[in-house]
Amino acid sequence: MVVSETFFDVRYYETDLMGIVHHSNYVRYFELGRVQMLADMGLPIQEIEKAGIMLPVVSVECHYKLPTKMGERLKVVSRIEKIPMAKMEIKNEIYNQNGELACYGTVVLGFIHSDTRRPTRAPKSLIDKIIPYFDNL
Amino acid sequence: MVVSETFFDVRYYETDLMGIVHHSNYVRYFELGRVQMLADMGLPIQEIEKAGIMLPVVSVECHYKLPTKMGERLKVVSRIEKIPMAKMEIKNEIYNQNGELACYGTVVLGFIHSDTRRPTRAPKSLIDKIIPYFDNL
Amino acid sequence: MVVSETFFDVRYYETDLMGIVHHSNYVRYFELGRVQMLADMGLPIQEIEKAGIMLPVVSVECHYKLPTKMGERLKVVSRIEKIPMAKMEIKNEIYNQNGELACYGTVVLGFIHSDTRRPTRAPKSLIDKIIPYFDNL
Amino acid sequence: MVVSETFFDVRYYETDLMGIVHHSNYVRYFELGRVQMLADMGLPIQEIEKAGIMLPVVSVECHYKLPTKMGERLKVVSRIEKIPMAKMEIKNEIYNQNGELACYGTVVLGFIHSDTRRPTRAPKSLIDKIIPYFDNL
Repeated sequence: MVVSETFFDVRYYETDLMGIVHHSNYVRYFELGRVQMLADMGLPIQEIEKAGIMLPVVSVECHYKLPTKMGERLKVVSRIEKIPMAKMEIKNEIYNQNGELACYGTVVLGFIHSDTRRPTRAPKSLIDKIIPYFDNL
Repeated sequence: MVVSETFFDVRYYETDLMGIVHHSNYVRYFELGRVQMLADMGLPIQEIEKAGIMLPVVSVECHYKLPTKMGERLKVVSRIEKIPMAKMEIKNEIYNQNGELACYGTVVLGFIHSDTRRPTRAPKSLIDKIIPYFDNL
Repeated sequence: MVVSETFFDVRYYETDLMGIVHHSNYVRYFELGRVQMLADMGLPIQEIEKAGIMLPVVSVECHYKLPTKMGERLKVVSRIEKIPMAKMEIKNEIYNQNGELACYGTVVLGFIHSDTRRPTRAPKSLIDKIIPYFDNL
Repeated sequence: MVVSETFFDVRYYETDLMGIVHHSNYVRYFELGRVQMLADMGLPIQEIEKAGIMLPVVSVECHYKLPTKMGERLKVVSRIEKIPMAKMEIKNEIYNQNGELACYGTVVLGFIHSDTRRPTRAPKSLIDKIIPYFDNL
């Protein structure tokens, strides 16, 4: 399994008139987390894209448990639990600074060729980086 | 059933470096659609909020089928298929101008008192507006 | 002079914890206005881009006079007062539905070749569309 | 003078179809910088707000010099060069990781009472934190 933790502060513009972070931003926080996870694995997303592969989002799902607010430092935990084939599934959890779960959900990414925009499998460069995390199986 | 259609143009800042609308924005488009649906029903969300009730999002799920681009005029279809009790479920579909499904998903809203932030049931003002749409059942 | 008016509703996610539209969104509203102005002139920005020219923003300035809120329908007025050469200057004003000025400011755009990203002059296709608005001079 | 430096990574959703960070986001980066500057001074904005004062933006101006991209780590430098009275002026510069200036501009904030929304002067709590930075004058 690949696991990554990314910390970040709530930004003022991310709050809404309810006084809490607008729900759409958690989808963006999930993205922050997986972009950092890829970078931590030694394969920043911009490297994958330079090699002609893009990772469009196939589906997103997000369950909200606790609101978060301006002044809070949050943590997103991202996990790849299965070696990706045609798709890559990422589990996400966001915690507030008391360690309470604020929200969680799953994001599924696909792989396409940048030029043709046609689907492809997970690129070898990515699989090679991911495999070592599953070697103990 | 309550059904509402809202049309809108893709905004430049909503696109990303893949040249398409960033996936997080569809969650915001779903919101546009349901805000307009409430207004069409004669109960704008700001009226509900003035009466001391807020509608936080409990869960969002979104499935992406086709990318959309700058220059496209999109349509979001919002539907309430069940009379809300403790929660309100909204079905959403977004179509491009060729009538093709770009994405779809379900959003669940809760109801809380603005002052105490404690859960409550769907306010009577809302139920009264929704009931007539289900009278033919 | 080219003048264009675009109407739009405040979106929920554009508000912040002060209960008003976050100031950064007015910069995006200015963009809405000028994108619509170009479309009204018969030259949508995506057509200019297809012809290999992009219009990066050189400077933005925005003065805030009155807050705006959820539930308000706003109007952005965009104006080109001078025929563009190396740069295009756009004047912007945003009004609330009482006709009060909420904010105003100037945006300057440049012109670059999409492939080389090097500066160029306003494309002929754009000048040809703009000239008729200044013919009465 | 108060000076603060804040580092952050470009986020994917902040890019647009030109492949660069959308210009509106720099206005948000300026906000990141000044929020961090206030926190560094020992007076987080949420503390000021708890005391009943809000800091609406009066004007923003931003000059763009170089585009920035996904994968870049940026730095925003925020400066208060004058002790605030009715208004607080903040100078902002954003640098890419090669130390090149990507953009710069000035933001002016006002002070209002949260309850009445009427203008007031800079609160004593803020002045007290700022004065020591100017003592060497």
